[in-house]
Amino acid sequence: MSITRPTLILNEAIARRNIARMAGKARRCDVRFRPHFKTHQSAAIGEWFRAEGVRAITVSSVVMAEYFADHGWDDITIAFPVNWLEVETINALAMRVKLGLLVESVETARFLRERLAAPADVWLKVDAGYGRTGLAWDDSAGQAAVAGALAGSERLRLRGLLCHSGHTYAARGEKAIRAVWNESVQRLTAARESLAAAGFPGLELSPGDTPGCTVADDFSGVDEVRPGNFVFHDTMQVEIGTCGWPDVAVAVACPVVALHPERGQIVVYGGAVHLSKERLALPDGRVHYGAVALPVEGGWTLPIPGAFVTGLSQEHGIVSAPPGLLEQVKLGDLLMVLPVHSCLTANLLGRYRTTLGETIPMARF
Amino acid sequence: MSITRPTLILNEAIARRNIARMAGKARRCDVRFRPHFKTHQSAAIGEWFRAEGVRAITVSSVVMAEYFADHGWDDITIAFPVNWLEVETINALAMRVKLGLLVESVETARFLRERLAAPADVWLKVDAGYGRTGLAWDDSAGQAAVAGALAGSERLRLRGLLCHSGHTYAARGEKAIRAVWNESVQRLTAARESLAAAGFPGLELSPGDTPGCTVADDFSGVDEVRPGNFVFHDTMQVEIGTCGWPDVAVAVACPVVALHPERGQIVVYGGAVHLSKERLALPDGRVHYGAVALPVEGGWTLPIPGAFVTGLSQEHGIVSAPPGLLEQVKLGDLLMVLPVHSCLTANLLGRYRTTLGETIPMARF
Repeated sequence: MSITRPTLILNEAIARRNIARMAGKARRCDVRFRPHFKTHQSAAIGEWFRAEGVRAITVSSVVMAEYFADHGWDDITIAFPVNWLEVETINALAMRVKLGLLVESVETARFLRERLAAPADVWLKVDAGYGRTGLAWDDSAGQAAVAGALAGSERLRLRGLLCHSGHTYAARGEKAIRAVWNESVQRLTAARESLAAAGFPGLELSPGDTPGCTVADDFSGVDEVRPGNFVFHDTMQVEIGTCGWPDVAVAVACPVVALHPERGQIVVYGGAVHLSKERLALPDGRVHYGAVALPVEGGWTLPIPGAFVTGLSQEHGIVSAPPGLLEQVKLGDLLMVLPVHSCLTANLLGRYRTTLGETIPMARF
Repeated sequence: MSITRPTLILNEAIARRNIARMAGKARRCDVRFRPHFKTHQSAAIGEWFRAEGVRAITVSSVVMAEYFADHGWDDITIAFPVNWLEVETINALAMRVKLGLLVESVETARFLRERLAAPADVWLKVDAGYGRTGLAWDDSAGQAAVAGALAGSERLRLRGLLCHSGHTYAARGEKAIRAVWNESVQRLTAARESLAAAGFPGLELSPGDTPGCTVADDFSGVDEVRPGNFVFHDTMQVEIGTCGWPDVAVAVACPVVALHPERGQIVVYGGAVHLSKERLALPDGRVHYGAVALPVEGGWTLPIPGAFVTGLSQEHGIVSAPPGLLEQVKLGDLLMVLPVHSCLTANLLGRYRTTLGETIPMARF
């Protein structure tokens, strides 16, 4: 591989194994696997999911839905609150694919009744404890009001309750993640029971986050799962306890451009426009933007203990390096940075290069 | 303007005024103005600089140098330590433009002597106190060693000493910024004197950062200046004290997709893939990712006191909103987010839309 500048390296075997594991668990549990494609944003990688039997997907924007619809996907949930300003594009999509939309207010339910031009499934966006957006899981009156505003619509079919329990990202360890998962499923179930009692029976449940879906022993009690990040994982997932380093499928190859042994630092070509400024805390209170490994034939080593990207400018990355690494590295070498958040890093780098040397394009919006 | 999704809005009049001010100060001081084009990454915006007499530019990567060379710029400094792995592209550039390169080690000086195929200017990259990279300003022996390694080269011409005093970003207020500026110029001057005494006379000085170049009363003592961010400015520059809100030339228009008055929050379509996760601290210890204003004909209002983007997912922005704003805003409205770091936000959004409705493309690397 002749790599000359920051390049997103993808180990296809690891990604395919991650997909196969999650698809297998969903199959065993007889639960629909509707993976979130925002992580990879690539039609080619989408085919790896199709090979595992995936037919239904999740995306995080209307333009991303268009991109995957253009690449043969016809069952797409846009897991983002309906943006009124995009109703024309939503209508065009609803005419050509089986579309799922997220609604969390009576206003948006009414807006869609008035403006939606083709059939769509509606998922009530429920906040199961994360606190980002959605109707509170225990707001039975609010949920029933939205369901009521949809009732009798010719085009809108209330399909179920959907949540993203992103607070698993604040958990550490499988036990803590599993507790959030179980609580989320219980809360969705309680909301479904309230809605059934209010005259809206038969709703499906759809939880979503990678930590929960990875760590949960099974998916009993829900109808579909929507994890996304698990296809690549990243340093954050390892930190949370979702997975181990051998499950991380992407790293950014960064050329070494300066050495500062006097302060234990290596400067790489690889900055905020390549890695993103997503960060994690180190035990000593500093922050970091990625763990650092060495390139080897076919991939990269385990991260080097104590080696982290601790500073980022637009194009510069500052690696805090233990003495052993500094002795080993020369100008013109590559270091491999395992990103904190692979979704953001992939979005910035805009294409993949596999460890076998193949280039895989992705959408750029 | 029919805006339906996160869109980078540019007030051309403000940007042109920012350019004219800096160009005017450089002209008055008889100092070369070599603006950094990493902020806008746009050939079209480059022409606004050309209209102010700019003929020499700075970029932060080899690919960016290629892009601007393709658009008629023929005097380009790549303000990033030479990346050995890109020597072929550097050679191709050196054959067609007047190229400036940054060197900070004897190894790279030797590498270029051996591998550079066409003439280039070399700037010694000096660390005047920022601590990111470069030879320490008071490391006379180190600087002389690099200068010595270049001496007698047919192609490499040691042109001067260059620094980026990025520690002005930790300063607050004009007095503190000016102190860093003055110290940097003094340190560059001292380094030049040492090099002259060591047999390397006649070197130029090139400092660079936006806060310093904006606040400095004049540019006496230096030969060129290389600020970049000032063309747009941003919330960080206002926080530092470099400029005021009326000098900020860009904002991101973000559709409102959910309202949570019970916790004083508005959810917008505008996330980490639009704004970047560059952050600033709020007085109460929270962090924020942008100040929030309202759209008005031809632009945006001053930021609304107390309204900030305090949370970012991939596509969601969580705006912490004072009660007055929550009463005013409806689903389907736009909010205008003044980004923390306009360079990173522009890089993510990939194009501009002026307040007059024109679309301006930019490079995507």
